[in-house]
Order: sequence, then C-alpha cells, then structure tokens
Amino acid sequence: MTTLIRGGTVVNADRAFRADVLCEGDKIVAVGPNLEAPAGAEIVDAGGQYVMPGGIDPHTHMQLPFMGTVTADDFFTGTAAGLAGGTTTIIDFVIPDPKQSLLAAYHQWRGWAEKAAGDYTFHVAVTWWDDSVHEEMGVLVRDHGVNSFKHFMAYKNAIMADDETLVKSFRRALELGAIPTVHAENGELVFQLQKELLAKGITGPEAHPLSRPPEVEAEAANRAIAIANVLGTPVYIVHVSCAESLEAITRARARGQRVYGEALAGHLTIDDSVYCLEDKEAALAYVMSPPFRSKHHQDALWHGLTGGNLHTTATDHCTFCAAQKAAGKDDFTKIPNGCGGVEDRMSVVWDAGVNTGRLTPSEFVKVTSTNAAQIFNIYPRKGVVAVGADADLVVWDPQGTRTISAKTQFAKGDFNVFEGRTVKGINTHTIAQGKVVFSKGDLRAVEGAGRHIDRPAFKPVSA
Amino acid sequence: MTTLIRGGTVVNADRAFRADVLCEGDKIVAVGPNLEAPAGAEIVDAGGQYVMPGGIDPHTHMQLPFMGTVTADDFFTGTAAGLAGGTTTIIDFVIPDPKQSLLAAYHQWRGWAEKAAGDYTFHVAVTWWDDSVHEEMGVLVRDHGVNSFKHFMAYKNAIMADDETLVKSFRRALELGAIPTVHAENGELVFQLQKELLAKGITGPEAHPLSRPPEVEAEAANRAIAIANVLGTPVYIVHVSCAESLEAITRARARGQRVYGEALAGHLTIDDSVYCLEDKEAALAYVMSPPFRSKHHQDALWHGLTGGNLHTTATDHCTFCAAQKAAGKDDFTKIPNGCGGVEDRMSVVWDAGVNTGRLTPSEFVKVTSTNAAQIFNIYPRKGVVAVGADADLVVWDPQGTRTISAKTQFAKGDFNVFEGRTVKGINTHTIAQGKVVFSKGDLRAVEGAGRHIDRPAFKPVSA
Amino acid sequence: MTTLIRGGTVVNADRAFRADVLCEGDKIVAVGPNLEAPAGAEIVDAGGQYVMPGGIDPHTHMQLPFMGTVTADDFFTGTAAGLAGGTTTIIDFVIPDPKQSLLAAYHQWRGWAEKAAGDYTFHVAVTWWDDSVHEEMGVLVRDHGVNSFKHFMAYKNAIMADDETLVKSFRRALELGAIPTVHAENGELVFQLQKELLAKGITGPEAHPLSRPPEVEAEAANRAIAIANVLGTPVYIVHVSCAESLEAITRARARGQRVYGEALAGHLTIDDSVYCLEDKEAALAYVMSPPFRSKHHQDALWHGLTGGNLHTTATDHCTFCAAQKAAGKDDFTKIPNGCGGVEDRMSVVWDAGVNTGRLTPSEFVKVTSTNAAQIFNIYPRKGVVAVGADADLVVWDPQGTRTISAKTQFAKGDFNVFEGRTVKGINTHTIAQGKVVFSKGDLRAVEGAGRHIDRPAFKPVSA
Amino acid sequence: MTTLIRGGTVVNADRAFRADVLCEGDKIVAVGPNLEAPAGAEIVDAGGQYVMPGGIDPHTHMQLPFMGTVTADDFFTGTAAGLAGGTTTIIDFVIPDPKQSLLAAYHQWRGWAEKAAGDYTFHVAVTWWDDSVHEEMGVLVRDHGVNSFKHFMAYKNAIMADDETLVKSFRRALELGAIPTVHAENGELVFQLQKELLAKGITGPEAHPLSRPPEVEAEAANRAIAIANVLGTPVYIVHVSCAESLEAITRARARGQRVYGEALAGHLTIDDSVYCLEDKEAALAYVMSPPFRSKHHQDALWHGLTGGNLHTTATDHCTFCAAQKAAGKDDFTKIPNGCGGVEDRMSVVWDAGVNTGRLTPSEFVKVTSTNAAQIFNIYPRKGVVAVGADADLVVWDPQGTRTISAKTQFAKGDFNVFEGRTVKGINTHTIAQGKVVFSKGDLRAVEGAGRHIDRPAFKPVSA
Repeated sequence: MTTLIRGGTVVNADRAFRADVLCEGDKIVAVGPNLEAPAGAEIVDAGGQYVMPGGIDPHTHMQLPFMGTVTADDFFTGTAAGLAGGTTTIIDFVIPDPKQSLLAAYHQWRGWAEKAAGDYTFHVAVTWWDDSVHEEMGVLVRDHGVNSFKHFMAYKNAIMADDETLVKSFRRALELGAIPTVHAENGELVFQLQKELLAKGITGPEAHPLSRPPEVEAEAANRAIAIANVLGTPVYIVHVSCAESLEAITRARARGQRVYGEALAGHLTIDDSVYCLEDKEAALAYVMSPPFRSKHHQDALWHGLTGGNLHTTATDHCTFCAAQKAAGKDDFTKIPNGCGGVEDRMSVVWDAGVNTGRLTPSEFVKVTSTNAAQIFNIYPRKGVVAVGADADLVVWDPQGTRTISAKTQFAKGDFNVFEGRTVKGINTHTIAQGKVVFSKGDLRAVEGAGRHIDRPAFKPVSA
Repeated sequence: MTTLIRGGTVVNADRAFRADVLCEGDKIVAVGPNLEAPAGAEIVDAGGQYVMPGGIDPHTHMQLPFMGTVTADDFFTGTAAGLAGGTTTIIDFVIPDPKQSLLAAYHQWRGWAEKAAGDYTFHVAVTWWDDSVHEEMGVLVRDHGVNSFKHFMAYKNAIMADDETLVKSFRRALELGAIPTVHAENGELVFQLQKELLAKGITGPEAHPLSRPPEVEAEAANRAIAIANVLGTPVYIVHVSCAESLEAITRARARGQRVYGEALAGHLTIDDSVYCLEDKEAALAYVMSPPFRSKHHQDALWHGLTGGNLHTTATDHCTFCAAQKAAGKDDFTKIPNGCGGVEDRMSVVWDAGVNTGRLTPSEFVKVTSTNAAQIFNIYPRKGVVAVGADADLVVWDPQGTRTISAKTQFAKGDFNVFEGRTVKGINTHTIAQGKVVFSKGDLRAVEGAGRHIDRPAFKPVSA
Repeated sequence: MTTLIRGGTVVNADRAFRADVLCEGDKIVAVGPNLEAPAGAEIVDAGGQYVMPGGIDPHTHMQLPFMGTVTADDFFTGTAAGLAGGTTTIIDFVIPDPKQSLLAAYHQWRGWAEKAAGDYTFHVAVTWWDDSVHEEMGVLVRDHGVNSFKHFMAYKNAIMADDETLVKSFRRALELGAIPTVHAENGELVFQLQKELLAKGITGPEAHPLSRPPEVEAEAANRAIAIANVLGTPVYIVHVSCAESLEAITRARARGQRVYGEALAGHLTIDDSVYCLEDKEAALAYVMSPPFRSKHHQDALWHGLTGGNLHTTATDHCTFCAAQKAAGKDDFTKIPNGCGGVEDRMSVVWDAGVNTGRLTPSEFVKVTSTNAAQIFNIYPRKGVVAVGADADLVVWDPQGTRTISAKTQFAKGDFNVFEGRTVKGINTHTIAQGKVVFSKGDLRAVEGAGRHIDRPAFKPVSA
Repeated sequence: MTTLIRGGTVVNADRAFRADVLCEGDKIVAVGPNLEAPAGAEIVDAGGQYVMPGGIDPHTHMQLPFMGTVTADDFFTGTAAGLAGGTTTIIDFVIPDPKQSLLAAYHQWRGWAEKAAGDYTFHVAVTWWDDSVHEEMGVLVRDHGVNSFKHFMAYKNAIMADDETLVKSFRRALELGAIPTVHAENGELVFQLQKELLAKGITGPEAHPLSRPPEVEAEAANRAIAIANVLGTPVYIVHVSCAESLEAITRARARGQRVYGEALAGHLTIDDSVYCLEDKEAALAYVMSPPFRSKHHQDALWHGLTGGNLHTTATDHCTFCAAQKAAGKDDFTKIPNGCGGVEDRMSVVWDAGVNTGRLTPSEFVKVTSTNAAQIFNIYPRKGVVAVGADADLVVWDPQGTRTISAKTQFAKGDFNVFEGRTVKGINTHTIAQGKVVFSKGDLRAVEGAGRHIDRPAFKPVSA
C-alpha cells in the first residue's frame, strides 16, 4: 500500500513547510518537495491544506463499565469516530476494581480492544495497594508496554486512591521508568458536599458543579504535585479544568518540576451554564467530572496551552445515553459521569484555538499530538511527520467547516456536548497506518485494524 | 492589691503613648498621664521603658505525654518560666489518644494544669472521629470555654487526622463557632521518607529535616486551607516554618480567605545547620517538627509577620532532656520531638524583629499578644493595655540585655535552643493578675495562681 | 457643647462593645456603659445602632481646576455632603501646575478651603522637579502639616511625573518623614492608545476604558512599588481598580514591603458596562481614571480589603456636570475625568461589604476611617472612638435604607454614579467636632466650621 | 567538501537517536544509520559522542566601542573563540549613538564583521527616536535581514530608551514583523544609587551590585513586558539574572503572553562574592550589568530553563582587559561593563546543567541553539541536525574534560570569569559550513569565512 499526499504544507511541532509525504505500508518513507508518485500509489491532493500528524487522544474510556452501566462507544465505534475526526491513536484506561489483579484487568481490556479500528494503548489505574500491585506494575512495564499509571483522587468508596496508595505507587512508577497520572479532585470533600447538597434538597444536575468547586480540584492537583516533587517523579494531571488547578501546575513548573497538564476540548469551550439548562435531559448529559466551569476558567486553560503550562488536549470520551443518564435524574450523585468528544476534539481545538490566534498551527500539533507522544514515550513513532514515523496523518482544510451534531456523528450516543457548534478547520482526509481511512466524509474504518501500541519505559539517554 | 506602673510608654497594637497604668485587683482601672498612686500601691518605675500587654504564647505543651515519655516542664514550671520572660498566658493542648473521649482528656489536662502559676487555656485535639467526638466538641464549646480544635496532619499510626476527620471536624467547628487549627505536615510522606532514610542507613538527627522537607509542610497547609475554603470556615496554621507553607497562606489571604498563621521564635532565628552539629547531643536537642530551616525561610517568615500574612508568634514549648532525647540516638524517628522557648520568646522576637527594623513596637505587641487574643477570642480581656482588661503587663527595657542559657533559665530542661544568644530588649517586670510576679530577675511565681481562661465561641456581631 | 450618644454599640477597628459616648467641646471625654448625661447635654439615642468613628475620605478633589474647567463641589458643599453621609474628614489635593511653586499652590488651596464645613487636610502633588521643589517639600512638612506627596504617573504633557521626578521625590519624602502616594497609570501607554483609538475613529466614552486597560495601571503600580522598595520608603497607591494592580501590591507586601492601597467605592461596585450605555450623557458621566472595570476586578478589590492588602476606601470625589462632560462628547480624551461619591461612600461600602459578609463592622471601620488615620498620621485624633479623640462620630443604623439619587443628594452635580442604588445601612446622625451636624436627613453644615488638620511627619517611636 | 560524522548519537531538541550525519558543501545532506562515506569525504569519528547543532550565542559584543574604549575581541577572534567552544553562530548588536542613523551604524558594524570566522547576524539597538528611526527600522527589516531590535532601559545619559521610545519602537517592530528585545534595568534608579554610593565613599567594585539590585532589573522587565502586552507584541528579555525578573516573565507567560528570556552562562554559575575578592583586579574584571547574583538567583535561573520560562543561553561576550577595567578602579561607575564567555558557554551550561540532571541533552540543545534559531527566525537553517540545515555541528564528548583558563583560551583578554573551572562535557570537533574548524584542540578558524545570516521578518503561517 502506497499513499502520496501531495501539495500540502506539512505542519510539525517545530515548524511548517511545503512538502509532499510518501507512505509505504504503515510508515512514512519520504517527506519533501515534488515527490514522485510510485506506480499504484493512492494520491491525496492536499493543495491549500495542512498535513499534520494524526491526533493522539490521551484520555478516552471506550466500553467502560462505570457507575453500574457501560459507556456507549466500544473500541470499534470509539476509535472509528476518532479516525473520522482526525485522531489516529487513543490512550484508554484499564481500571481494575479494588482488590482486582492489575494484570487480570489489563488482559480484560486488551480483549475488549481487539476490535478497535484505530491504534490504542493503555494507562493502568492503581485503585488499591498491596504487594501484588507493586509486583504487577513491574510486569506491566516490563512485559506489556505500559509506562503510565492512573490514580483517582476522587470517587470515595469506589476507586479513590488514598495518600498511602499515591505515595507507594508514585515511588514504584519512578523505579520502573513509568509516569504517574492523576484525576485530581479531593474525594472526601466531594463526598461531604454531595451529602450536604442532597440534605438540602438540591438534587438535580445543577448540584453537580456545586459539589466539585475549583478548590476541590486545585487541592488534589497540588497534593499530587507535592508528592511527586518530594519523591522526585514526574507527574501528569489529567483534565485540568480550572484556573486554580492550573496555577498549582504553573507554580511547580516555575520551580523546575516536571509536571504536565491535560485540557479537555470540552473544558476549553463549554461553560457551566449547561447545568442550569431548562432541558433537563441536556443538563444531565453534560455531567462529567470535573464539571464544566465559567468563562474565566476557559481563558485560563487557553493561557496554559499557549504558555506551555498545559501540554495536551484530550476528551475523556466516555459517552452515556439519555437512558443511562436518567438513572440520576432525582439524585445527581447517581448520574453516570462522562461526555463524548473523540470525534470532535481536533476541529474544536483548531477552531477555538488557531482561528482565534491563541495557538499557531505548530502549537496545535504540539497539543493535539506531539506532546502526548513525547510524554507517553511513543515519539517519534507517533506525533511527527517524518521519515520512519507511523503513517498517521490528517489532511487539514483550514477553510472547511462542519456543524457538529449527534445526528450526523459517527460516534455512538444520542447527545453531543458540542451540538450545533460550527467549526472552521476540518480534516478532509485521515490516513492511518498508511491507509486513507477517512476521505471527505467517507469513513472506511475496519474493525480490528487497530493495533496495541507498546510504550517502553523511560530510560536515561546515553551517548 | 494595687499597682501603679509609672513613667512608661504604653505600647498597644494600634499605637504607643506616654501613660501610667493603674491596676486594682486583677484588672487595669486607669491608663493616663500622671496618675495618682493610691495609698498602699506598689509602684513600678517604667521610666524610659515600654509597658505592653503580657505575652500570650498560643502554642505550648506542658507536662505532655509524648513518644513514650513526658515533657520536662509541668504546668507550674512552664507557666512560671513564661512569667519570667513576659508571657502571662499560654494556650496549651489537650491531646486525646485515638478512641479516647475528648471530655475525659480535657478533664485530665485541667487537673494537671491546676498547679499553673500563670493563666492558661486549651486547644483540644481531634485525633479520631465518630459520633461521640462530634457530640463532645459541642459540650466543650458550650460548657468548657473551648473555641479551638487542633488537627495533626502528621504522626501517622498515632494521632494523624485523615481527610475524613479534617472535613468532619472543620464542619463541626464552624457550626459551633470554634476555629480549627492544624499541624501541617503530610504524615504519609514523612512516613515514607523516614522509612527510606533508615533503609539507607541515615539514622542520625541529620536525617530529621530530610524526612520533613518544606514541600511536605506546604502540601498539608494548602490542603487544610482548601478544606477550610470549601467549608467556609476560618483556619489557623500552627508553626509555619517555611516559605512554601507561608505562600499557601498568602495566596489564600489574597483571595479573601480567613486564614491565620503562627511562627515560632525558633523558626524565626535558628537554622538547619544545627542538625549537623558535631555535638550529637545538641543535634538531638534541636529535633522538633517541623524542623529548623535555612536562612531563606527565616527571612520569609519575618516577611510574613511584617506583611500581615502571619499573625502570632509562639514556641511549641515542649522540652525533653538529654536522657529523653537519647532514645533516638540510633534512630532519628524515635527522638522525642520538641524544644523549649516559653521563657525566651518575647526577647528573641524583639531582638531579631524590632531591633532590626522588621517590626515596630506596636507590631511586636500584635504578634506576641493582641492577635492571639483576637483570633482565640479573649480580646480585650487579654492583648491590650486598656481600662477593664486583665492586668497582665510587661515593663520592657529596650536597652536591657540578657544572655540566654539553660544554666540560668527558670524553665526545666538541660538545653536551650537559644543558648548563648544575647538579646537586647528584656522585661524588667512582669505583672500578672495585677501582681508583680517578676522583677529584675526575681521570679515570684505562685503554684496554683494561674487560672483557666474560658474562651467563648465566636458569634456574629450585632448592634 | 456637650453631647451624649446613648445606648449604642461602639465599633472600633479592634472590637465592638456596648457603650455610651460623651463629647465635651470637640473631644470625646468618656466611653463607657450607662454614662450620666451632664446638664444641658444633647442626647442622641443610638439604641440598636452602631457608633463608629467618622469616616475619613483620603481622596477628594473639591473645587479642582482640571482639564479646563472646575469641579462642581467647592469645599463647603463637598465637605457638607461628606457630613451628610458620615464622612467627617477629607484629604484633598494641592496640585501645582508644572513650574508652579508648591508653597504658592498650597496657600491657594488653603484659601479655597476656608469655607469648608468639615475638617480637611492636603496631600501635595509633585508634578515637576527642581531644587525649589526639594526645598519646598521640606517647608511643607516642617511648617504646614503636610506628610504626604502625590505623584501622577499618567496625564502626559500635563502633570505626569517621570521616573526622575519619582525617584527624587520619593527619596526626599523619606528624608522628611513623609509618605509618597501615586496615581498609577503608565501615561505613555495611555497616550499611545488614545492616539490609536482616535485614529481608528473610536471617539466615544466606550474608548475610555480601552485606552486604560488593567495592564497600564498594573505596570505603573509595580514601578512605583519597585522604586519605593529600592529607596526604602513606604508608598501608598491611590484608587487601585484592578486585580493586576492589586497583585503588585500583594506581592510587595508578601515580601514585607510597606505598601498601602486604596479602593474607591465606585470601583468596588460599578462595572465597565456603563461606558456602553445607550444614554450617552450617562456614559460620559462615568468617565474617570482609572475607569470602572469588570466584575472580576470588583471581586478582587473586595478580597484585597478582606485580606489586608488594601487598606482604605475613598471616592476620588471630583464631580463634573453634564455640560462640562459634554466637552468630550466627540473626543473621549477631552471628557473631564471624575465622578462624585463623598456623600455615599460609607453606605455603599457597608451595603456591599458588611451586608454580604465580606467585612465585619470592625473591618468596615478600619477601611473607612482607622487605617487612613494611621497611614496619614492623624491617629488617634481621628479614626477611633476613644477618650481624647476628636468627637467625630457616626451613629449607624444597620437596618436603615436609603435610595441614592442626584435628585436628593446634598452634593452638587446633576449625576450620581450610584443613582438608584438602595443601600441598607445608613448614618442616622453625624457628629463632628462634638456637634450633631446631621440628624435623620437634616443637614446642619456650617460654612467655615471645618478646620485644617495638621499632619505631623513620621518619626521613629522611642520609649 | 564532504564530511561524514560517523557513529554518534544525534541530539535534537525533540529527541536523541543513533545516526551518522553527512555534509556536502555547507549543508547537511543525510542523517541516518550507517551512511556510506562518499569518496574523499573527511570522516569524523563520533563514537560514544553526541552530535548536536552548533551553538548559537544570541548575545555578543565583538569589537564594541563602549564607555570610552573598545572590547578586546574583534569579529575574527571572537567568532573563532566561539568555534573553538562549539558556537557556530553569534547574534551581535549594532548600537547607534543617539542621533546616529541606524542604517549608518548598521553598515559600520557590517564592515567590522567582515573578518569574522563564524556566521553572524545583528540585533539593531534603538537608542533614540524620531521619524527617521521609524523609517530606517523598516529599511533594515525589508532589505537587510534584521528582525530584532534592542532597547537599553539602563545607561541614563547615554543609550537609555525612555518609555516613549519603547512604546513607539515596540509598535513599529510589530508592524514590521520584528521582535523587540530589552536590557531590563531601571536606569533612573541605577543612576540615583550610583550617586548615593559614591557620595558615601563606596567607590570600589563591591558597589557595583549594590547599585543594581534585583528590584531594579525586575521593575524594568515587568515594564517592558507590560508595554509588549498592551501593544500585542512579543518581547525578548536579554540576560535575565535574578529570580524577581524571571518571575515577571513567568507571570506573563502564565497568562499566555509571548515573552522569551535569556540567561547568561555566567549568571547561571557565578555568584556575587566575586565583587568582594581581595584581588581587586579580579573584582573589577567581573563587573558587568546586570551583576552576578547570589546562589538563590542561580537556582531560579536553572528552574526557568527547566520549566520553559527561560529559553536561551548566551554570554553577553564583551571582554575588557585589566588595563581597560582599571579606568574605574577609583570609581565603580567608570569600570567598563562586560565579561567574556563565548568560548566556554557550551561546556559550562552542559557541565552545570546536564551533569546535574537539570537539563536533558535535548533540552541542552534547545537552550543553546534551537530556541534561539526559532525565536530569531533562522530555524531550521540553524538549530537542528536535519537534511537541508546548515552543516553547523558539534561533536560532543560527555566524558571529556577541560579546565578553563585565560592562559589557554583562544579568545582575547587576560581574564576568564570561569578561570579554573573544570568542565566535564566538551566538543571534540566543531563543524561549520560543513568544514571541521576545530578538532581536539586544533582551531582552524579562517578570517572572513563567516557569513552574515539574513533573518527574515516574521509572517503569519498560511497553508
């Protein structure tokens, strides 16, 4: 299979330049001006367009069993939706139940993921602690291509990791050359606030953000960063949603600490007025954690991306249908937490980021692909348009527009948090593993075509 | 009993002015120029001197059972030493064992304190949680003059309060009109670092500060402040020892939160080189938590006092003798934590604070007396030289000097952390309850003369 | 003249307590419970009310010649309006023209002020520099009761002080025991932005805030603070209007620098939407510098007052009538800058500050009276209810309400920036120099009754 | 001319990988494993070594007439010394006298630079303002490859730019697609402090840092950043030497502003004790502005580089000999300001940065080469090892050591600020324009071989 992308402007994290891109099999084999098309090559005309590394969404939950139900998108539909929107790799999560073997859970998720249409890899959550967890973390890193472990500081009485677990797991990750990641919300405070709100009779979705104010997130972010600082390990904060949490990251980075932050496309563009929508079903649909915040926080997140204190954009794609969300209609603590987005992230971030002058095209590439590849150690296989890299590409029309809607999306689910938003800047083509898998609205996703991407442990560089 | 202090300059938190002070019984009855001496009045000549409110040390541990032993000063010797140094009131701590009734512990401490020579009152520690704790907090506030509760975020496997306890106790304190206070160190990190240091064979007192770096303290301070912020309660951070912890307070105050901070005389003036002294016995003697820090942190603490981000000075007076400290000579985690200072705080803070221009005399009064009285709601009974206030006074000679030494101190203990320091600025007289209890080196402390000072709950002010 | 205020709760900066207040002549002679009314005393019933120190407005411009016209209120009407609203002392400004003698200007203003109904005193502006300015600053401090000098960092080509003037004047002030104050806006940037806006045809009042964004103010505040820091002098920033400017103050205070900040009642409560009002005359009426800001900045200012990083509230009372404002209707740079407020500050700050829980009554006293008295060295003559202090008092009904309107105000001017606002918390009586000058709507201001208040230079405190 | 660098590990800003590098003429033509050596190619054995982009020193002053004398290194010796130390490109400064034509000065410098052995390009200083300056800035950008303009905020009565010049020049630079750079020190404060120190009889080099405390630098940095913020232009702060100045940058970047900062090798490693050396000649030799600072500031600068708030390392190479420095032996204000370093920067930064774990090798490349190339728009011609880039390379032995000394250096001058420092990590070879110009101590610099590097104006990226 040979594919030639012709006439475009290649955009990498470090610069943009006119060049054609030639793919052989699943790899890029040439990047340069006026490349000859080999016989039989499929030609993609990228005239007037950008050619960028395929998006990496470092935070998705396909087929996740959560809060008594399972998310709408499985690994096939979820990764296919990603391809439709220009995302060629996802990093999903293995989430063992407390007391469950990490390895057992890992294999369970690997099984579910076999049907994926796009490449995938896994963070593994550490939701409890004993010696077997310590041991299995080692096995996962050495034998299974895992180099990141996730910790939930929220969800008390479920998967919340206490300080002891955080300290021991961070320490263990450092030994193994893996990076800890955290969902930063103080679960104890959330629990208390939920209880108090319910006691006051505030039970609807409008109570959700009240139970998780910015301080609750900032406290946990600061704590995880402090633990990482004391133990000398890097740390990655998922879905940073508010100014205060970002400030904790910014302070740490200013003193030289290796801290990374992730922003969700939703947190960057949707505000908390959604929880007071008259359409109660819609209000329920927006429930996720951390919740959407006010405009002030959105501005802060963009500043974080521009100034280099936030590094990646993701979606936390975790879709529940109206029927599922309805489980919490009389008690907001029972609403399954999660929203979609994997199909829309690239366009939403471009439209709100590049079109507004907040990000250059190269910075767009950094925050949608390159930084994730580097932080999770799959660079330069992923995250760059260069000879030898995986042939995962988007051809991007900065003038093209699309109006986002659940009705027209490829992803499952009856609701889209970006419903009705018209974005300017869309992928006309997605190339994955060297093949055109999306072309001007035509999605050619193949069940099982996706591969697990091993992520090696970090090692000291040597000459 | 009538006492007239004549010819001095009265210094209050708001201003200094020439005035005589007349005391009748235990109260101040007149403050003004050229007061007539009633017949039989004892006359104290304060010419060329300042007359200031008696010091309040809001953080002492007399007669404390801790780490398998008991501190050297009991309530008599400890409060007497305070009187010798110009401190007329202490706020000590009732520390129930986990599962012990708060009320039972409170009565135990009240019994021990009956022999006190100076006035005293108690913070009560919340070291565990169940419904009885919730209930007894109410009884203590309503019936026993307690309006502050202490929480240890360090000392894992002993008296450490976890987040659940913090959240529930802070919430309860707010209901009751009481203020939560915290010892801010992340006990989980301390525990981990101690284990690792011991495993590496670093067992001496030099390991102590390594096991409790500033980040460990700052994390806990930030967490306590965040919890207080979310729950809408004020909070008081005891013994702030480092810049990072102070920054957490400063950030909170800058956004309008009611946070108060305390600095110890030792942290303001002693640096961490003491843990590497060749004299191993001395190095052990300096072990307390948080540990002494580098000069950089001392400067920060002074800035905190000058700028209004720290409010009180205290000592954490908690003296152990060499024989007691020796328990940890081969394992720093077994060194009883604590140092003295109640006798020296006033002079040390004056010498290092006022003589250097960091504090005005009025600011000295604020941070040694007035602010503590206001924060813990015994103002204006204590903390001001004014008609109607308790006749607790120091007559202060700004030119007088004293060289601090364990050999000459009134306090018990064979070591003084300020040993050899010559301070300029000393009390020539201390007046407590209207009586001259210290006069130019002559201590006239009376066992049992001290009183428990009830501290009422905070209430909304109304017209 | 004897006046007894009976049955109220005295509120001082340090506490509130039930007490009667007895005034003889212009002084307070007794404060205590159940005072006997001397024969012939006027009795004021303060039952259910607060009795507080009369307000000090440290920033007014009565009878100011500015931008080719003169403000509406002269010293009689302006101070009378102050008395009506509970403000018994103003600090106004002597503003010499460049090259004008400071002393000559001072005497000019003193002449204008002779008709004042309430007490007054003056900051003197340093708008240029040569040796005579240096000399006359000394004369003003030594012989004329001036202890503060004002510097405008804005108003290029008029009264703007360049860095050389700032450095020399700050240095001189320190020698003299005087405090420099600054209007912090970078005049060069304002000038550039004005020119660019006019060039783009944006000429209406909506251009005014665009020409003076927060960064313009924050830069100047930071610069003045840096100069003060390097030279070792305190500094007072007038009319802090935005978060960024406050942050410069907060940073400085956190490192122990003696910096003070002032907030205007208007900046605390009015937002920048006023510049886009359809009623163009109203939009013009709101033009002052710095301009009103968004809600975000208002919140920040309140946090500054609560957290102790801002110290005083003022008005910058400087009223122009519609006919005067119209001079700039086609060119926003020609709109006379200034708004009123001296009559409303106390109620506006109480209503928006105390009723919302941001300030306690004692903190209200601090920021409306005590702090100004201390910073400008007229404490305890002013700023406290105490024996020996000037008998300047307000009797405050926390339940009383008033709807502010230009139609009913005592101040001159055809517009009130607080028009239509109903405030809860009003003075029922104002006592000045021991006399009831305002009683339940009846203003008894007497032309010429106001006195110049000498403010002595600052001196080191000694025993 | 063909050169093959064989067996090394290529280090670029984004990653390190094993590869050979083939140079043809002055360009890199291949980067890959096991490249064939063309006939006649010079082979450089890089086994066990790193192959990195040649260093770019963005701040040098060769042959500068300054303070009545001329620096010791001319463009030949200075660039040759650079080649010896692995720096293949310098960015020097054209500094017109006030009232001198920018173009005239530019041509003067271009003439002086013709003898350069290494590549060079120029920032042009704006030291005064009138319409001709506005005009000539345009000519320089359009016709002469200049895309950066320098502004001195210090050096009053000489080349200091006032706010008006800063505002107008920044605005003009933005129009032209050029970036303003600033030397940030408040010249007015420096002038005042110098005067006061001399008046007190403090005249030696120890007075130099006292006349330029951190606050003086931080004020100016903050001001330049504020002006850039208001005008919407990027800004680059040269030789950031202290924590406070870095904080101004960090704050700006945190709110999304495009601000860049430069650290000097000297400020990163030398502390201010040098000004008190008993060897007075040495003390004089260290005089430069901003001065060396305490260890605390060095740590901060490293944190800035690690955390991405500082971007480049430079030297401000500006060497004066002892005889020249002696001009100020009795008056520190007359000491010619400047120190060397162009020969030592790469090794000093590696030794103190990479060997300590503060920087990875890729980050070293960023801060010594790539970032400068990107910020000043000569990337990817410079700053990366890639096909098509200039063949400017260093072959780096991380185990090699060298002891720095004026005695053995190639640079002119009788003093080296790094004298006696043994660095681990040295270039064994430097390749410039494809030629080996330095090989294991053998410098083969050729007078006139250096080229002027045109730097194009910045333009919006388009597809």
